[in-house]
Amino acid sequence: MKIELENVLPAEIEKRSFEIITEELGDRVFDPLQEPIIKRAIHTSADFEYADSLCFSEHAVEKALDALRKGAYIVTDTQMGKSGINKKVIAEFGGEVCCFMSDPDVAETAKKNGTTRAVASMEKAAKLDRPLVFAIGNAPTALIQLYEMIQEGRIRPELIIGVPVGFVNVVQAKELIMTAGVPYIVARGRKGGSNIAAAICNALLYMLDSSRGQR
Amino acid sequence: MKIELENVLPAEIEKRSFEIITEELGDRVFDPLQEPIIKRAIHTSADFEYADSLCFSEHAVEKALDALRKGAYIVTDTQMGKSGINKKVIAEFGGEVCCFMSDPDVAETAKKNGTTRAVASMEKAAKLDRPLVFAIGNAPTALIQLYEMIQEGRIRPELIIGVPVGFVNVVQAKELIMTAGVPYIVARGRKGGSNIAAAICNALLYMLDSSRGQR
Repeated sequence: MKIELENVLPAEIEKRSFEIITEELGDRVFDPLQEPIIKRAIHTSADFEYADSLCFSEHAVEKALDALRKGAYIVTDTQMGKSGINKKVIAEFGGEVCCFMSDPDVAETAKKNGTTRAVASMEKAAKLDRPLVFAIGNAPTALIQLYEMIQEGRIRPELIIGVPVGFVNVVQAKELIMTAGVPYIVARGRKGGSNIAAAICNALLYMLDSSRGQR
Repeated sequence: MKIELENVLPAEIEKRSFEIITEELGDRVFDPLQEPIIKRAIHTSADFEYADSLCFSEHAVEKALDALRKGAYIVTDTQMGKSGINKKVIAEFGGEVCCFMSDPDVAETAKKNGTTRAVASMEKAAKLDRPLVFAIGNAPTALIQLYEMIQEGRIRPELIIGVPVGFVNVVQAKELIMTAGVPYIVARGRKGGSNIAAAICNALLYMLDSSRGQR
């Protein structure tokens, strides 16, 4: 059969993809600091809905970049999210990516309290003595727990990336976290995922990494 | 602010999600062996397009289940895909999940040959003396390489899950792999991803796992 392949060098595939995304977004104008994040979410999903669904609190990106530059840790709610984040770039700034979801003590606490492992892993993250960025791509219960801990003054995240995907309490948990009074990047609605959470983290990290061209 | 949360026990969230997906799919009728795969792809993405875009070769699911039951390995093209697959269930059948993308020899081969690491990691996988299921959620070049190795008689996968996401050669590579003469599950179009590849693998594994209710 005839399949016409585009002749693009391996190293150029990502660049060409971003060009196509830019073309297809047409004359839409984005905040220049939000644009690379929106485009990377589209790049990772081929879903242009993120151009409309991603919401940013005021100065969220500047604040997140400051925190990451100072060595903030990123906490994810899935191993999949963690594995998608560029560990090399975050390490250059003294940061790390953590996920406590598979920790035996987290499973135990969750069982004892009749809650989700995501809730228990947020509790565990709150004990880290570090500036923290939360990248939540799966569990709405993690966002609800963060909201409660913020209200109780037990935690003050530098940024919450709130992009769980799904059908039960996902829409509500995202609306809730936008009222918590901390910087956020949220994908309104049902869509999101660990891949989107990782893509947003990577977009932030690549903005800090002067060795990469900014897109 | 008033946020109305649905009161669902942690253990029931997935079940309730599948009920909502079933409700929203309405009176659509699916092949009973394909249905859990389609629904899990929707569950992982909140994107109902997968009800239309997922294509199955004849008896693809039966053949894949047979292979996994006999201990087939799953090969992914991202660490993220690997980390999303349920390793416990595949291990019960003697299988494993492999990803060679971060292997130093793969990086070296790719550089030497001016190709992608995905291509080099497919070459490496072809040397495994095992029945193989490929779960490709990222690299169209991996699908193109698999197609060529199949034509040359160098490999005969039990199943190819062809769900790369993206803008450059993704649509073409998926169309190509559907002509390779081996069983496939493909998400036609631009959409897909490592999360979708993992979801399809998990749907297959859960169909084999009698300890879980089938959805």
